Amino acid sequence: MIQYGGDYNPEQWPEEVWAEDAELMREAGVTMVTVGVFSWAKLQPGPDTWDFGWLDRLLDLLADHSIAVDLATATASPPAWLVRAEPEILPVTADGVRLEFGSRQHYCPSSPAYRTAALRLVRKLAERYGDHRALALWHIHNEYGDHVTACFCPRSAAHFRQWLKDRYRTLEGLNHAWGTAFWSQHYSSFDEIEPPRTAPGPVNPTQVLDWRRFCSYALLRLHRGERSTLRELSPGIPATTNFMSMMESLDYWEWAEHEDIVSDDAYPDPADPRAHIGAALNYDLMRSLKGGKPWLLLEQAPSAVSWRPVNTPKPPGLQRLWSLQALARGADGIMYFQWRQSRAGAEKFHSAMLPHRGTESRGWRETVRFGAELARLAEVAGGRITARVAIVLDWESWWALEGTDHPSARMRWRDLLRPWYEALYARGVTVDFVPPSADPSPYRVLLAPNLYLLREEDAERIAGFVRDGGRLVCGPFSGVVDAHDQLHDGGAPGPLREVLGLVVDEFWPIPDGKRVGVGADAEATLWSEWLVPEGAVTLDSYTSGVLAGLPAVTRHSYGRGSARYVGCHLGAGIGRVLDGALSEAGVRPVLGQPAPDGVEAVLRGRHLFLLNHTGEEVDSPSFPGHDLLTGTETGLRVRLGPRGAAVVRLPPKS
Amino acid sequence: MIQYGGDYNPEQWPEEVWAEDAELMREAGVTMVTVGVFSWAKLQPGPDTWDFGWLDRLLDLLADHSIAVDLATATASPPAWLVRAEPEILPVTADGVRLEFGSRQHYCPSSPAYRTAALRLVRKLAERYGDHRALALWHIHNEYGDHVTACFCPRSAAHFRQWLKDRYRTLEGLNHAWGTAFWSQHYSSFDEIEPPRTAPGPVNPTQVLDWRRFCSYALLRLHRGERSTLRELSPGIPATTNFMSMMESLDYWEWAEHEDIVSDDAYPDPADPRAHIGAALNYDLMRSLKGGKPWLLLEQAPSAVSWRPVNTPKPPGLQRLWSLQALARGADGIMYFQWRQSRAGAEKFHSAMLPHRGTESRGWRETVRFGAELARLAEVAGGRITARVAIVLDWESWWALEGTDHPSARMRWRDLLRPWYEALYARGVTVDFVPPSADPSPYRVLLAPNLYLLREEDAERIAGFVRDGGRLVCGPFSGVVDAHDQLHDGGAPGPLREVLGLVVDEFWPIPDGKRVGVGADAEATLWSEWLVPEGAVTLDSYTSGVLAGLPAVTRHSYGRGSARYVGCHLGAGIGRVLDGALSEAGVRPVLGQPAPDGVEAVLRGRHLFLLNHTGEEVDSPSFPGHDLLTGTETGLRVRLGPRGAAVVRLPPKS
Amino acid sequence: MIQYGGDYNPEQWPEEVWAEDAELMREAGVTMVTVGVFSWAKLQPGPDTWDFGWLDRLLDLLADHSIAVDLATATASPPAWLVRAEPEILPVTADGVRLEFGSRQHYCPSSPAYRTAALRLVRKLAERYGDHRALALWHIHNEYGDHVTACFCPRSAAHFRQWLKDRYRTLEGLNHAWGTAFWSQHYSSFDEIEPPRTAPGPVNPTQVLDWRRFCSYALLRLHRGERSTLRELSPGIPATTNFMSMMESLDYWEWAEHEDIVSDDAYPDPADPRAHIGAALNYDLMRSLKGGKPWLLLEQAPSAVSWRPVNTPKPPGLQRLWSLQALARGADGIMYFQWRQSRAGAEKFHSAMLPHRGTESRGWRETVRFGAELARLAEVAGGRITARVAIVLDWESWWALEGTDHPSARMRWRDLLRPWYEALYARGVTVDFVPPSADPSPYRVLLAPNLYLLREEDAERIAGFVRDGGRLVCGPFSGVVDAHDQLHDGGAPGPLREVLGLVVDEFWPIPDGKRVGVGADAEATLWSEWLVPEGAVTLDSYTSGVLAGLPAVTRHSYGRGSARYVGCHLGAGIGRVLDGALSEAGVRPVLGQPAPDGVEAVLRGRHLFLLNHTGEEVDSPSFPGHDLLTGTETGLRVRLGPRGAAVVRLPPKS
Repeated sequence: MIQYGGDYNPEQWPEEVWAEDAELMREAGVTMVTVGVFSWAKLQPGPDTWDFGWLDRLLDLLADHSIAVDLATATASPPAWLVRAEPEILPVTADGVRLEFGSRQHYCPSSPAYRTAALRLVRKLAERYGDHRALALWHIHNEYGDHVTACFCPRSAAHFRQWLKDRYRTLEGLNHAWGTAFWSQHYSSFDEIEPPRTAPGPVNPTQVLDWRRFCSYALLRLHRGERSTLRELSPGIPATTNFMSMMESLDYWEWAEHEDIVSDDAYPDPADPRAHIGAALNYDLMRSLKGGKPWLLLEQAPSAVSWRPVNTPKPPGLQRLWSLQALARGADGIMYFQWRQSRAGAEKFHSAMLPHRGTESRGWRETVRFGAELARLAEVAGGRITARVAIVLDWESWWALEGTDHPSARMRWRDLLRPWYEALYARGVTVDFVPPSADPSPYRVLLAPNLYLLREEDAERIAGFVRDGGRLVCGPFSGVVDAHDQLHDGGAPGPLREVLGLVVDEFWPIPDGKRVGVGADAEATLWSEWLVPEGAVTLDSYTSGVLAGLPAVTRHSYGRGSARYVGCHLGAGIGRVLDGALSEAGVRPVLGQPAPDGVEAVLRGRHLFLLNHTGEEVDSPSFPGHDLLTGTETGLRVRLGPRGAAVVRLPPKS
Repeated sequence: MIQYGGDYNPEQWPEEVWAEDAELMREAGVTMVTVGVFSWAKLQPGPDTWDFGWLDRLLDLLADHSIAVDLATATASPPAWLVRAEPEILPVTADGVRLEFGSRQHYCPSSPAYRTAALRLVRKLAERYGDHRALALWHIHNEYGDHVTACFCPRSAAHFRQWLKDRYRTLEGLNHAWGTAFWSQHYSSFDEIEPPRTAPGPVNPTQVLDWRRFCSYALLRLHRGERSTLRELSPGIPATTNFMSMMESLDYWEWAEHEDIVSDDAYPDPADPRAHIGAALNYDLMRSLKGGKPWLLLEQAPSAVSWRPVNTPKPPGLQRLWSLQALARGADGIMYFQWRQSRAGAEKFHSAMLPHRGTESRGWRETVRFGAELARLAEVAGGRITARVAIVLDWESWWALEGTDHPSARMRWRDLLRPWYEALYARGVTVDFVPPSADPSPYRVLLAPNLYLLREEDAERIAGFVRDGGRLVCGPFSGVVDAHDQLHDGGAPGPLREVLGLVVDEFWPIPDGKRVGVGADAEATLWSEWLVPEGAVTLDSYTSGVLAGLPAVTRHSYGRGSARYVGCHLGAGIGRVLDGALSEAGVRPVLGQPAPDGVEAVLRGRHLFLLNHTGEEVDSPSFPGHDLLTGTETGLRVRLGPRGAAVVRLPPKS
Repeated sequence: MIQYGGDYNPEQWPEEVWAEDAELMREAGVTMVTVGVFSWAKLQPGPDTWDFGWLDRLLDLLADHSIAVDLATATASPPAWLVRAEPEILPVTADGVRLEFGSRQHYCPSSPAYRTAALRLVRKLAERYGDHRALALWHIHNEYGDHVTACFCPRSAAHFRQWLKDRYRTLEGLNHAWGTAFWSQHYSSFDEIEPPRTAPGPVNPTQVLDWRRFCSYALLRLHRGERSTLRELSPGIPATTNFMSMMESLDYWEWAEHEDIVSDDAYPDPADPRAHIGAALNYDLMRSLKGGKPWLLLEQAPSAVSWRPVNTPKPPGLQRLWSLQALARGADGIMYFQWRQSRAGAEKFHSAMLPHRGTESRGWRETVRFGAELARLAEVAGGRITARVAIVLDWESWWALEGTDHPSARMRWRDLLRPWYEALYARGVTVDFVPPSADPSPYRVLLAPNLYLLREEDAERIAGFVRDGGRLVCGPFSGVVDAHDQLHDGGAPGPLREVLGLVVDEFWPIPDGKRVGVGADAEATLWSEWLVPEGAVTLDSYTSGVLAGLPAVTRHSYGRGSARYVGCHLGAGIGRVLDGALSEAGVRPVLGQPAPDGVEAVLRGRHLFLLNHTGEEVDSPSFPGHDLLTGTETGLRVRLGPRGAAVVRLPPKS
């Protein structure tokens, strides 16, 4: 079964509306709703006052209508009375400004008062509803790391110091790791250390990197506290917290270990004609976080959001198409923020399944229509996706990469990754993400668009992969520093020097707006490097600029495999480099041939998804089978309407 | 009589200069000067020390030269000794930064210490000068809301809480109005409420709206305190405070009730070739604030200002032309900042009637020449202007419109209003402004470029106007929320649904830089809407984009009148829509025909003003009469020199 | 001898690396290294703990390798233990944010605790190493004014008040100087005065100007404290502090009086094709600061820096060329930041003489090659440069010029100066800088691109220079205010009115992006003035805009000399005006003719430097002599390779 539903905030409406809601949910085919995300103030009106009656009635009502509940622990926004009683709950910026109540998610991750109160609330909820017949899923907290990623208050500082003590054991260890001999930064006591608050100039980069590690940890520690309370009091009920796609501040590899099921809040921008490619990327990540296990699209917008400067709605058919895309890439549930559009507050202009205009609205008609359609796709649930190509994603490296005082401040992980992903997407090649510590042997091709920070042991694993016959393509500015953001001996690519068969003499970032020719027809922007081959052969050279004639892209045969290095940022030009590696590895598109422009083809289990992201009718290659959407048999080609789709059940392999 | 003069700051000069000033004022035809705006430190050198001698001498000197005095209460900039004794007078930003002494207007509007000291000073001044022979007008404070619109200190917070208690009586009322069920924002005590300081994310929009109401109120309360002291101690002398044109932060409709005469500080930018249109708009507002009563242009620059990044001077003739424009639109006085250019301080490069170069300067010659000319226009004073068209302006709606998390952050009141006003200006159609609570029956056409926030009772008044035969043109994103910034039932246009004969299905803001075709030749930017007519007929449809074929501009016959709705931002294209309404209502240009390009024609009382805003000679239609500037009789055409003007006294109506 | 070397930070490396360093330094021809700039934490691990052993060993090692030491006093970055013991050492921003430890140069210039600790350290160092055989130079502190130019804490405020008392003696004096009659800013006690912290609007400009004077003074006071300790305990050893080229916040004229030798940190941007012209300008300033005495280039980057958004490396040959340029313009030492590239910290990507890649790298090869070459240029050391043209540079005027609320915020000293300098550079005319208080009689031509603030006595000196036959060219917006930033009587050009033979009626700044025609083919941007000649004759008039037909450039014969005035910003058009003055004064290019495009010709002592800044081979005029670089005799022409150079020893004048 594929879950269908959305966030439901009944506290915003009088109880007489609830019955209507339940009826309309049934009409729309809703199977599950998320309840209670922002209900703390209503559940606990005072320090020792609890009000569960309304929630009892609501859960019963939903159960009576056969609607399952994803029950939130409601901890993300502590009530006013608590914040006033314990002012240290409010988070503090790097400039020392204590952020005020009045918005949401206003808590210091390291505040003991907050933690105590939050866990007390979770315990109450779990005790009361842990075995409620409506309960299908626990929704822990909400969007960890949104708005407030870090708090710089004294309590956070103390927590940071404790974390550093646990990490380094000795001051010597910390001083060495942070390189405090530089700029007279030696610490003679852990007590002298503070968070990287605003300082006269750039702060010690390893301190900043450790701070980012700590911030992800401090939030994860909160999450684990809630998780273990639920596991104790509500055994057997799975729990999730809603991730925020490829978010920078949290190391989702670590987080995902504590999820029973991964869920995502995804808000691609309908004004961006390439938004669906970014969505595919994020969905591939969600699927990868627990090794291919199906995940939930827990929040998306039925139409426009309200937090962009200009919020473009989704034209007719787009929410259906984008929902099918999530399904294609491994989701087992399609849910929305939110069920009924708010009348007040900061999200009242955020679209909803049931818009302001009510059941007369276009939005409502699309809600009902898609609910019915989704029911016909139930058999897709649980299907797995197979990828032969993996992209290495490392949050620590990401954080370190985007530190200050680098050769170029333009080297941003997502910008570096995107053209690599787009090239694979355009070729119809399915891809997983893996952490650098993963065993890459299930894959034929390993891609590392950037691995600025690289541990020796991870480099060795990658080298072993190549030695054993794998194909590696490595992007620029990789293998530069170790886990302490300290340069590897001999410079980049550090521990990848042997497998890549080259050394970097000097980084040559390219100024904004400038381009350098590469090979026959490609161009580099942002970055180039002065490479010195040590065994690698040159595939493409620079054709202009100071580096003209020097190697830009190389290939090194190593063991039974090969390793390509791309010493510059090639943009779309990366495609040709990837083609070489894919071809060596025998990796082919889903359809065995390129899909037409704008058509996305994904094979999930035995279902072929064909998604037409254009506004025109398209005739696409396919495989013969049964289209679940139309209920018709299809042949070697399928006609897709504008923003149309097919979900073809392929016959069992003979 | 038309007042002529400027701000006079004698404390910046040794007394021997005063006599020269008085002589030169007479030479220039000065009739009134504003004195004492920044004299607090000089009038009260210490807590219990007062120095009035210098002001006694100055007022006598001016009286002896027959120069009237607009005496300032001097309260806008408290002296250093007071600020140091009562540090809480200094205002605090949303980030918690207490702003320092050293500039001006450094006071917390809710500071009791400030209020007490200010009212004590006003009392002293009123007691001493309340019946001085030179005194013609009281100048309360200075430019309320300039620099500091809001203070976020604890005293302001307490004041805000008190204001909220008065407004809502009960916590239930406040919680409901603010929609605190959203995001767990419920308050269980008024003491838990704070100003909308910097918070993790967007702050509750109704809280922000109430804060803006409160900030306007807190300043008005100060103003009313001063006003009532003056009324008690200086009865019969009118009082004003200098408004700042169409300023966002103060609800001038409320403020104007407490003015004996409205006055304005107007600083159109000479570098902007369309600045005179914005000036006309502001002057029409000033005239409208007290129902058409003449007003004073209390400050303008003789040439350049000093607070823009680049301060363009006025070329020869421009200060005369722009002064005549103010006269044309209802001013009974033309005054400047300032009389004698300062030698020191932050405004020393602001132009003055008597520039640094002295009586040799071009500026001085223009000062003298225009003073003489103005004397010939005395009969214009008191004349009224008749408008058949009114624009609805509502500060509360403006504040709510520009809140955060809207479908588009680009919908700014002044940007929405401007093309409507420009279209009327270009057609030579005179317009008044009215609050939404006004009786619109004196007008034939009512224009509402935007009424995002709209109370039921105001909507009913507007509907009644149409029912009784009026013509309404309503702009997009209107009738959206009620006074609590909560959505009207059924969505926009809420209580205007019946009179407009349509409902909005969904808002479709247009991304930056994009355009959508409308009708034969118009284009929408910024905004469009998916409209569903319920009786309205389509005048123009969208011709491109997702909404192509759907109605963009509609007309609904309602009662004896009609209501047009413009569901998008049309820019200059609004003109054709207005033409339809004006034509139905039989509203015609001042001259009965369009004026030549760049010529502004305004009828004030029995005087026709013809103002040539171009740098070329223009031959303009006119009515036969007597040109007060040249002293000649004119016919059906008048030749206007570059930046030239005519003020034609028309013969009495026969 | 020409010093060659760089910053050496041995504390970042284990001692076993030091021996290798010393050997490699010898290989590279290094003669001197700067040691200890950031060693405070290592030298003084606790309040009463000192560790000099490592430095003893290092200095002995260097001495044994005949490498001289520029020993830093290490005071720029106080250690963590000190900052935690005395938190008031940390500086505070204008918004009240106390900046955190973790970066560098984190000290309040007025902190007694900092000063005491710093001087104690200097005393210890001077006592121990004041006569060490390796010691050649004391390096006081580091880059004063970098990162933190001003601290706004209470201690700084008290210090500022004391400085004001010393300056003005009486409150009356201060009130008059600051013009506190304006905006009610009168002070009745020095205790009421604070630094110009963030205020509601613009702060009193004279207060800001005095604050800038004070900030330069407060840092200089620290410097003088260290200087006098060294002079006492290490007599005979010269001391320097590394200046930061033409830096805005410190009045280097005052500072240079306390230097035994001027030294500079110069970081021209290799991505800027005109960077070498800015470098020449700064080097001319360094030479001028002590009246032509040779100076040291104490820091430059061997290749890329790391603190720009994008850090472009130097292509092969560029570091050599730019180093020779410094030599040509008076440097007696070429040093770098830093010797060995760091593995950790915020500058690990800053290039070094010995890069990460080690002795295999291109960078190292250039280091060695240039060291050898420099040894062949030893005879250049000590040579002097003769200029017939001087540019007046006044830091106080610069500070005042860039105050707020001026006719145009675009008038920035460096932007005004640059085209004047570029015109001279293009013509091969050597120039000195002089303070306004200097005796200009050694020069034939005096240039004042801007003298917004001008004291009567300095104006009189300039007038005397012209009267005695000198040629003056004065740029716009000059002679405007006195030392208190108060307008001169009668307006600009104030005390220059007689010598220039004109008066300014009004400033006419030109809006961004606009241009006004001047004379036959020039154009003004940014600025123009309405000039009224009083004896001056017009050289060029405006040809467009409001001022068309009015004088733009004038010349006034005065005494035996002449004074030109340029009432606008002419950009490259200034060249023709300067030509007139140079020609009257008989000033000719170094080569007697213009050098080819991109070739810089400088005569230092008896050595002619020819520097080819282009990437192409160039054939340049020269004088016959002996090229020290090639060891060959040269004739009337020299062929220079791309980025090539010649250093021609001319025969003794016969």
